[in-house]
Amino acid sequence: MPDGANLSTEQLRSRVEAILSRHGLNATQAGALAGVIVAGERDACKSHGIYRIEGVLRTVRARKVDPQAVPVLEDADGSAIVRVNAGGGFANPAFDLGLPALVERAHSLGLAALVINDCTHFSALWPEVEAVAAHGLAAIALCPSYASVAPAGGTDPLLGTNPFAFSWPRPGGEPYVFDFATSVAARGEIELKRRAGEPLPEGWALDAAGRPTTDPDAALAGAMLPFGGHKGSAISTMIELLGGVMIGDLTSLESLRRLGTTTMAPMHGELVLAFSPERFSAGRNGDPFERAERLFEAILGQGARLPSQRRFAARARAAEAGIALTKAELRQLDDLMAEAPNRS
Amino acid sequence: MPDGANLSTEQLRSRVEAILSRHGLNATQAGALAGVIVAGERDACKSHGIYRIEGVLRTVRARKVDPQAVPVLEDADGSAIVRVNAGGGFANPAFDLGLPALVERAHSLGLAALVINDCTHFSALWPEVEAVAAHGLAAIALCPSYASVAPAGGTDPLLGTNPFAFSWPRPGGEPYVFDFATSVAARGEIELKRRAGEPLPEGWALDAAGRPTTDPDAALAGAMLPFGGHKGSAISTMIELLGGVMIGDLTSLESLRRLGTTTMAPMHGELVLAFSPERFSAGRNGDPFERAERLFEAILGQGARLPSQRRFAARARAAEAGIALTKAELRQLDDLMAEAPNRS
Repeated sequence: MPDGANLSTEQLRSRVEAILSRHGLNATQAGALAGVIVAGERDACKSHGIYRIEGVLRTVRARKVDPQAVPVLEDADGSAIVRVNAGGGFANPAFDLGLPALVERAHSLGLAALVINDCTHFSALWPEVEAVAAHGLAAIALCPSYASVAPAGGTDPLLGTNPFAFSWPRPGGEPYVFDFATSVAARGEIELKRRAGEPLPEGWALDAAGRPTTDPDAALAGAMLPFGGHKGSAISTMIELLGGVMIGDLTSLESLRRLGTTTMAPMHGELVLAFSPERFSAGRNGDPFERAERLFEAILGQGARLPSQRRFAARARAAEAGIALTKAELRQLDDLMAEAPNRS
Repeated sequence: MPDGANLSTEQLRSRVEAILSRHGLNATQAGALAGVIVAGERDACKSHGIYRIEGVLRTVRARKVDPQAVPVLEDADGSAIVRVNAGGGFANPAFDLGLPALVERAHSLGLAALVINDCTHFSALWPEVEAVAAHGLAAIALCPSYASVAPAGGTDPLLGTNPFAFSWPRPGGEPYVFDFATSVAARGEIELKRRAGEPLPEGWALDAAGRPTTDPDAALAGAMLPFGGHKGSAISTMIELLGGVMIGDLTSLESLRRLGTTTMAPMHGELVLAFSPERFSAGRNGDPFERAERLFEAILGQGARLPSQRRFAARARAAEAGIALTKAELRQLDDLMAEAPNRS
């Protein structure tokens, strides 16, 4: 196979973990990050795959994240809120630490929240809502990012691309999952248009003077727009409130001010809600999981798609044949491994 | 004042309550409904004001709602879930009954849910999230409606207009509130275009054959579209799952099948989540309410608006000068009062 190779999930995971360890991440950080990076690559979600390693290392080198952080669980009061302080490390090991307590609490109270504070965030949210769904729970996850989106009717970057993710467990199969930016487009999509020399579709962005633009450079110097006009803008504002100020963590504007750049992973908090359908449907007719399947069948039956189906198809292919990496991608992994880490 | 009159909130409330009582609603139902109908009229939200009385009475006459229902609180297990069975009555008295328990639970656990089952729903959700916010809690409310919206990529009515509402308390002022249909347009907006003989904007609806249409009649015979493309469609699907199947109540498709028409208020359930910012921010720096104000100032400071500002301005005018009703509206109230109720 002269043009590349197929790696098993485990092979790729150990290579990514070794790269992260070599660049100073402790086992907790490196293990959790390798897990989500490989999950992205496995699901053909390239924008959250090994492509992200360089951004992680850039953020580590700039000392904007603590590669040696050990997250701490704060869960003493028996309330519906489980809190993990990520200690200035990445969000992913903090999520892993908090998940068992979140699951226990959602099963016992019917509804619970996991708050992650003081974390740097670079991954998608679907690995997290999928992990909750694996325990028979529905989940919502949301967080700010850094200010790059103007509120509807405004002109200046204030909101983040503020992702919103949801999962519903499906017995015997992959969950129903969506995970999207509340901006019209992700920042990476504008970057791709810029590199391709293509104009943006109308309605994606404003220039620095607040005028609508289809020029990617002008858009990157200006502001992106929320999806769905004032409705998407309202949801994005809700995410600033619930996933920022409510949990005592940074808004997207505060995160950008602290970081000073959009080229590194932003620091802020994250909120994950977990719902027990068994508890919410207790005493009512019908099994919620069976009834949900009828809803999904009705969507598929009229030719519409469920979100994440492309990811799950890629996941099935990877389970069968491994994760296909190009020669350039393999070389990139070699280079990252060989690269001398910045010693502090 | 030959063309109408200004009524105080209390004057209008007692007239609406008397109409509802005369048509067979018990005091619990009539009182709660009069409250939200007058709130709509007061806020110049005419589509949820006295205009709604006829639909309420039509639903009562068709025996699709029990005008004598007494909601029952089911809250024995100390969990984060408070449940009210509306007993086939309207949602509003069930919400009123459950609110104190929801508030108590959200303060004690940090996060709690109110499930309303077996209710008929005809009002906006903002009165409910505002009522939660009045207790210093943030709130999300959502519910299905009846199938009138095609999922993105589909052609047939399956989802409801599925409203999504949120509130954040603002000390000393009206809360931050949004409440919108997850369809591009509300059904009433299409109806208004039809009466005015105007075409619909592109992207609002499909005809019965699943083709995009700008013809209001074709749209009413076909399907509306979700706001924001596949993202809005995903949120609407989440509402079917959380506010329908999860709480053991009807989806929009099941509700339409049971009702058999879109001319009456639909029966289903409702989910309200309440969050305590004090609990969620405990131990963290900064007061969440003060920090939220800085976010709102930044939105307003760049010329964007906060949602619901028009409603709050109308509310302030009504507090000053009363609720202005036209002569035709006053006559309508007289007619509804004089009308012989259908005896069973």
